[in-house]
Amino acid sequence: MTATLSPSANLVASYDALHHFTAKAFYLAGLSEQDAATGADVLVLTDAWGTFTHGTKSVRGYLRRLKLGGLRAKGRPRVAAEGPAWAIVDGDSALGMVTSTFAMEVAMSKARATGIGYVGVKNSCHYGAAGCYAWQAAKEGLIGVSMANDNPSVAAPGSRGAVTGSSPLSYAVPAGRYRPVMLDMSVATVAGGKVYAARTRGEQIPNTWLVGANGKPTTDPSGYPHVGALQPAAGHKGYGIALLIETLAGVLSGAAITHKVGSWLHDDGTQPTDHGAAFIAIDIQAMMPADQFKQRMEGLVEEIHKSPLADGAERIYVPGEMEWERYDRSLREGIALPSDVVASLEEAAKIVGLDLKNELQRNKQ
Amino acid sequence: MTATLSPSANLVASYDALHHFTAKAFYLAGLSEQDAATGADVLVLTDAWGTFTHGTKSVRGYLRRLKLGGLRAKGRPRVAAEGPAWAIVDGDSALGMVTSTFAMEVAMSKARATGIGYVGVKNSCHYGAAGCYAWQAAKEGLIGVSMANDNPSVAAPGSRGAVTGSSPLSYAVPAGRYRPVMLDMSVATVAGGKVYAARTRGEQIPNTWLVGANGKPTTDPSGYPHVGALQPAAGHKGYGIALLIETLAGVLSGAAITHKVGSWLHDDGTQPTDHGAAFIAIDIQAMMPADQFKQRMEGLVEEIHKSPLADGAERIYVPGEMEWERYDRSLREGIALPSDVVASLEEAAKIVGLDLKNELQRNKQ
Repeated sequence: MTATLSPSANLVASYDALHHFTAKAFYLAGLSEQDAATGADVLVLTDAWGTFTHGTKSVRGYLRRLKLGGLRAKGRPRVAAEGPAWAIVDGDSALGMVTSTFAMEVAMSKARATGIGYVGVKNSCHYGAAGCYAWQAAKEGLIGVSMANDNPSVAAPGSRGAVTGSSPLSYAVPAGRYRPVMLDMSVATVAGGKVYAARTRGEQIPNTWLVGANGKPTTDPSGYPHVGALQPAAGHKGYGIALLIETLAGVLSGAAITHKVGSWLHDDGTQPTDHGAAFIAIDIQAMMPADQFKQRMEGLVEEIHKSPLADGAERIYVPGEMEWERYDRSLREGIALPSDVVASLEEAAKIVGLDLKNELQRNKQ
Repeated sequence: MTATLSPSANLVASYDALHHFTAKAFYLAGLSEQDAATGADVLVLTDAWGTFTHGTKSVRGYLRRLKLGGLRAKGRPRVAAEGPAWAIVDGDSALGMVTSTFAMEVAMSKARATGIGYVGVKNSCHYGAAGCYAWQAAKEGLIGVSMANDNPSVAAPGSRGAVTGSSPLSYAVPAGRYRPVMLDMSVATVAGGKVYAARTRGEQIPNTWLVGANGKPTTDPSGYPHVGALQPAAGHKGYGIALLIETLAGVLSGAAITHKVGSWLHDDGTQPTDHGAAFIAIDIQAMMPADQFKQRMEGLVEEIHKSPLADGAERIYVPGEMEWERYDRSLREGIALPSDVVASLEEAAKIVGLDLKNELQRNKQ
């Protein structure tokens, strides 16, 4: 499969070609071959799921930080402290995907030894899609939970501006013959990208997405992100979950907290952002025979699939099912990269002296 | 302080008097003195927080089940299986508060040994307010997380009827000189009790609370709970979190799952409900000096309190702050029990041959 221009002028790249390009770009920015491949693993998987806001679109920003030194190409995450079922990982300002993959590996190892493992991470950066690390555990038969803090973009009930990060949270649970049940969410009603998109199109937005300059719900996205903040999903519930995530990913890990976390996109690229993250792995087999757990999860999935449908509904999705269907299509037909991702990849390619389309063409499967 | 009639004809009971009555009622239903006191600890704390839907109002239902045998007065929760950082607790159909308090104690013990502890519970019943067990850990300086499954009452996106339980979830985090940061939520947009209340008053409800017989949002609560199901908070997010809770509290613990969980209120009182629950405790001091953690949490709380206010807002609450303010008032002024709680307590008293007001009057502080 090669890179081709789709009718909408978006680029369709094969998984392997996009992976090759991404890994090569990171390698050229100074990462080891292994770390470069880890970065590509996470970001291309994310695109294959159709989560384009958190996939290779971010390579450009990471490369800039790598060039400027805020991200350290030769940074090496390490266990800074540990006990039987926990560890604190110091990310050494390495690429967030490298540190996070390492940290979940440590959590899984703790879980295999004791049943459950918690790993808090400090000195990390933007970690991309939370789901990648939850899935990292689930594909090995463990339950994985992944969360991270970020500099504030989401309001609290009663606040004028942003109080918490978007606070990504993901879990993945092996489900026997079905794909893992997998949720990847932020605590905001919608992703900031949706507000941007409406702004770009000059459209109004529902009044549940954003608060304006006065802290009240607004339908006007025109000032975002300089004016306003995202609304927390389900009000105090989203806000409350955000503070649990801040506690486990930021406070307990020793990372920066809320406004002290740097913006990986907008803040000084020469400085670390000191993001925090937390990873929890649970070793199912320690607690229940693997076959029994599989049967129980399969039963749950089937029960949901067979539940009566609401008028007008075609099916009930199990969390993650949409992502896995897009993933299968991505592997079969290539990843149809939206134009904003292509534009970002082209700039990323320039940063490391590559030609995007050349690279994608040269790396046929 | 004694029980007195407030102007609104609600009953104001002192914490101690209500605790004494509740413990006595459980004792008369056959529980040991210690188990009866544990049940009262949880339920009166819940009322003191102002969470009247999950406090002593439920005593009547528990006493009925205790009389009928579905709840076992002499049931003894025990560790059925365990490893260094986990345990499965068999609740032996004891009162849910007794089993849950025991299970969180086990989780805390595991956490003190390894850093984090997971305890799954099977053969339990309705466990009341999730926050009680999270707070049980936080008052000992640990982070506590508590969750439970239940028979379905909440729809999934696209479902006609209920697919998941209300799936209570709570966490509590010690915050130094401030009260613990504490969230106690369900995955539904609102509690079923709010729909009931609107129905009783003959009012319409917002179209985000309920789906009707056809599975579509409705403003008509008149058929609830026989017709319709609660809507999940923030749609796929609430639904997704519900399935994580079902996994940790139901699937992995070995408890009943979704529709196989008995309704503790409506199903045959002679049969166990086989509710599941999960408790996670994290030993902060294993990972970070207690003082440092306290300072970091205090800083987070203060930052939120000092955040600029939205137009019209008077303050920004930290999760749990409302409950702790009501708790302080309850201890100072007594617990102002709403009339539905009083009515339920009067019936509970009759079940065990007591006179509610007599008992509350006799037990002055």
